[in-house]
Amino acid sequence: MPLQTNINGKFTNIDVLIVGAGPAGLMCAYALCRAGINVKIIEKRATRVAVGHADGLQPRTLEVFQSYGLLDRAREEGNELRTAAFYNPNPNRKGEIELSERVPFFKPGVLNPRYDFGITLHQGSIEQIFIDNMRAMGLEVDRNTIPLALEISESLVADSDTYPIKMMIQNVASTEKEIVNAKYVVGADGAHSWVRQSLKIAVDGSLTPYVWGVLDMVPETDFPDYRNWAAVHSDNGTCMIVPRERDLIRVYVLLEGQNAVKATKKVADDIREKVPPEWILDVARKNLHPYTIATPKSFEWSSLYTIAQGVASRYSVQDRIFIAGDACHTHSPKAGQGMNASLNDTYNLAWKLIWVLRGWANPSLLQTYEFERRQYALDLIAFDKKLARLFSDSPRNQTNVDGASRTEFMSLVQQSTGFSSGIGVHYSPSSIVDIKNQDIANGIIIGKRMPPGTVIRLLDFCPIHVHDLLPSDTRFKLLVFTGDISGTSQLGKLPQLAARIDHLRSMLPSLTPNGVGQSGLKALTIMNSRKDPALFKKLPLTLRSHWSQVFVDDIDVSSSGKISGNVYQEYGIGLNGAVVVVRPDGYVGAISSFPDFGHIENYFAAFLRGP
Amino acid sequence: MPLQTNINGKFTNIDVLIVGAGPAGLMCAYALCRAGINVKIIEKRATRVAVGHADGLQPRTLEVFQSYGLLDRAREEGNELRTAAFYNPNPNRKGEIELSERVPFFKPGVLNPRYDFGITLHQGSIEQIFIDNMRAMGLEVDRNTIPLALEISESLVADSDTYPIKMMIQNVASTEKEIVNAKYVVGADGAHSWVRQSLKIAVDGSLTPYVWGVLDMVPETDFPDYRNWAAVHSDNGTCMIVPRERDLIRVYVLLEGQNAVKATKKVADDIREKVPPEWILDVARKNLHPYTIATPKSFEWSSLYTIAQGVASRYSVQDRIFIAGDACHTHSPKAGQGMNASLNDTYNLAWKLIWVLRGWANPSLLQTYEFERRQYALDLIAFDKKLARLFSDSPRNQTNVDGASRTEFMSLVQQSTGFSSGIGVHYSPSSIVDIKNQDIANGIIIGKRMPPGTVIRLLDFCPIHVHDLLPSDTRFKLLVFTGDISGTSQLGKLPQLAARIDHLRSMLPSLTPNGVGQSGLKALTIMNSRKDPALFKKLPLTLRSHWSQVFVDDIDVSSSGKISGNVYQEYGIGLNGAVVVVRPDGYVGAISSFPDFGHIENYFAAFLRGP
Repeated sequence: MPLQTNINGKFTNIDVLIVGAGPAGLMCAYALCRAGINVKIIEKRATRVAVGHADGLQPRTLEVFQSYGLLDRAREEGNELRTAAFYNPNPNRKGEIELSERVPFFKPGVLNPRYDFGITLHQGSIEQIFIDNMRAMGLEVDRNTIPLALEISESLVADSDTYPIKMMIQNVASTEKEIVNAKYVVGADGAHSWVRQSLKIAVDGSLTPYVWGVLDMVPETDFPDYRNWAAVHSDNGTCMIVPRERDLIRVYVLLEGQNAVKATKKVADDIREKVPPEWILDVARKNLHPYTIATPKSFEWSSLYTIAQGVASRYSVQDRIFIAGDACHTHSPKAGQGMNASLNDTYNLAWKLIWVLRGWANPSLLQTYEFERRQYALDLIAFDKKLARLFSDSPRNQTNVDGASRTEFMSLVQQSTGFSSGIGVHYSPSSIVDIKNQDIANGIIIGKRMPPGTVIRLLDFCPIHVHDLLPSDTRFKLLVFTGDISGTSQLGKLPQLAARIDHLRSMLPSLTPNGVGQSGLKALTIMNSRKDPALFKKLPLTLRSHWSQVFVDDIDVSSSGKISGNVYQEYGIGLNGAVVVVRPDGYVGAISSFPDFGHIENYFAAFLRGP
Repeated sequence: MPLQTNINGKFTNIDVLIVGAGPAGLMCAYALCRAGINVKIIEKRATRVAVGHADGLQPRTLEVFQSYGLLDRAREEGNELRTAAFYNPNPNRKGEIELSERVPFFKPGVLNPRYDFGITLHQGSIEQIFIDNMRAMGLEVDRNTIPLALEISESLVADSDTYPIKMMIQNVASTEKEIVNAKYVVGADGAHSWVRQSLKIAVDGSLTPYVWGVLDMVPETDFPDYRNWAAVHSDNGTCMIVPRERDLIRVYVLLEGQNAVKATKKVADDIREKVPPEWILDVARKNLHPYTIATPKSFEWSSLYTIAQGVASRYSVQDRIFIAGDACHTHSPKAGQGMNASLNDTYNLAWKLIWVLRGWANPSLLQTYEFERRQYALDLIAFDKKLARLFSDSPRNQTNVDGASRTEFMSLVQQSTGFSSGIGVHYSPSSIVDIKNQDIANGIIIGKRMPPGTVIRLLDFCPIHVHDLLPSDTRFKLLVFTGDISGTSQLGKLPQLAARIDHLRSMLPSLTPNGVGQSGLKALTIMNSRKDPALFKKLPLTLRSHWSQVFVDDIDVSSSGKISGNVYQEYGIGLNGAVVVVRPDGYVGAISSFPDFGHIENYFAAFLRGP
């Protein structure tokens, strides 16, 4: 299937060529580079995004950043968003708004995120975190570089050691051309994706009839909630305020009536960077009355946009070329999802590419990328449409100010914590999500990310967050919940279990140059026994390959009892224990009882490349 | 007072010359460099310490690291120490030990540290944290450099703009000599301090009759508590185990009886790096029986030492030349205090030097360095003597195995949390510690570091740790506890209070190029009102110079109620509020009521250099 004209000339071989150095492309490059994969990332822009654009990290993305050791910097530079405020028309004072309610932005206690806040931070700053960390590993973004042509050799696709993709790229500064032979290409080149268009992948979607104005500024205002996420429905229109880093706020205004711009994509594209920010601010002023907001000395950024909601019909060609991020899905920025969806697309893709490139997994593993991420995008669009409609609805009039619209809106925002936090993402059954044994640990939902919890490390009594057992190190983790091994009943089962884990090792020859603890599968032990370091030596060696890998479900006493465990109960694991398979991206892949450990062997056999 | 022969030749002018790049010298250089002071730091060693030596950061030092933004790296590299285990002779099995008790290393709930654990980390790694952060600011350690001669010009001492100290230094590699004219010199050059000896400062102290062996290794052992701090008293002798980074443990053994080496300093100095580690391990093996410990393939480090306990008679000459760290005090490493005492010496000294060098404070401020830190060293030595004696005592015999010795030892370790954590440091009244109004806020002890607490930021409901309001940025902080300003009673007092704070500003002309919020004094407001952002605008401008500086005492609801405030009650502050002065090093300097604000004006007047 030659997609373009034949490409000839000098070439370099690259395992993965990434087109586009926005959030999706950078996450992909960073994840692959960390794993030692031969990567090239090209970007047409000469510099990274300096202002504006997407600006929020949701709780699940914070967990992903933490799993890579990148969270501290994002927290240091960003602004924590915890509170949502809802303003509506004041029934007693025509034309004025009043506070209806303030609530936690992410409803606490429902979805159990490790971080119960979001971080607002300029897209460029987030990109810089990846860029700096890639640079420390020797990888730079090739800027000023565009793709010119792309072709794929059908005959080579089946052989995973070949480079079936040829791509011609060009440095627009020097006009020099280069041919790259790649095993895989990831098109993370935005809503107008060149890669997607080359592949003739359609985008199914629609344009909503709303036009929004957006601006970033440092405000001088008497509006009390300018450091909270504030949704304002007034008789004069709708606006939204999102606080950001460095005293900035972002103001979104819905443009309608006499302020409306003809809602076509073309118009917005043409004028969006040219609209005077003063004009957007004036609309916001009318919405915020009786509160006032001064015109700042300068605006950081402003734009207009329409909301195009769509999802690409396919995410891949031959499981050799993939698209990710805005190239796959576009939606409104209201749900604060854009950058998060993009980052998590390639977070999902990267470990699969790594496993196939290392020769560990069958190429069919890559099919799960589209399967998992496209469904997520469809769900997101459906949610986004609902939110966009409610957001854009006019408020009820004075005789019906508490009507369905307002209540519906607030409850959608609060009840949608699954989407707005990212914690609710639930992948459907596939070769890497096997829901058969869900009832063995009902608190751990197969297909969702491993829920948080705190355990005590057996040998030094340190309280450790369960997520810290699951770093994004490309390994599967086998969480062995042994039950109580103080007595002989559970302890007696462990040698056989350990033998089967050893056998699983022998099934995965390509994973075992350094044994279970060192390579693609890491076993961790969580006991439900008393906190006694002397129990350590009772475990079979397989279950204690390092002192730091054995834990108990107990209370941490060093912190005045502030940190409690109780994970067996939270996870719904009984006296007989359980074995939980956590994928390299932190999602739960399978669960089994001890006797049914063959279930886990089958789970791996389904996607592992045989010896 | 020429201390040496006259020094003549070419010279460079340096504000502060630091001799020695161990923990005390590096903390000093880092703190001064951050503040933009012209610093030079010289060190005779060619490289930083690679192995062994001091290896623990106590909770108070962790707070200091956090206040500089250095804690994350120390936590990442180090090992958290939370649990203490005590072993004693097994009364039923002669020659064997058994576990007596496991307890939190730092007794929880008593001293309220922000961090209820210690970090064990090799001295060289801690030095490297400072070195890397100094390098990012452009300051390097001048290695291979020794001091040759030192003189001070009496006639220049009184004029703070002069460089009264002349010091000749030499690069031992190139043998090139250099003359440095310095305003201040800090001798952080260790127990055998050249600076101290040049100044003819005596050390009052004694040598205890104990010799200890110490080694670092990765153990293979069935001793259950090798990842906890373990104190072992056996009939065969005494040893101590301290877990460290990278799977290492440190083993201390008391050498006595046939194993004893003649306890003279000379012997230990001569042989300490030469003793075979296998020999020390053999002693530990006898102590640990019936537990076994294998001989590792290699040892990381080993040494012998005697315990010299002493404190320098003076810490300064003319308040121009100071000594710090081991140059001032030596003691046993048992209390894990050595490096912490040294780091906190120069942490105490640095901000005072900065205030005098900036022309903000009278040079007399520098007298408080010796006053505060020498008393601390004396207290530490007294504690250390007690601990060293108990540590070295033989256990009671079989007929009295639960005797006073064991109980006394365990309770000393636990009850000494004030010393072992560093949280208990309590500076006596001086020009910068005024205890007059202690009763206004009995939970905040004047002369101790500001106690922890969590407040909610008024405008975005973020829970913020009170210590995060007190970074080590060289500023004094004025914590204004307004009480409840929802009503008119307290609110009505604020304009007058604000006017007096403005007046304090006018008293401190040298501090005010950029106003209270920007320079040497920062005001922060903590209200005891409901969480209502609309209260913000009710405050006088002085008490809300930035949105991020106003807080309420309330509960954080975003985290399922996990983080609670209640600081007014914890701090013992009543309805009328209080104003608390926190020094740049986090210690509480003074407290006043609103009407008695003149007390705070007097506090500053006592050490500030007039206009």
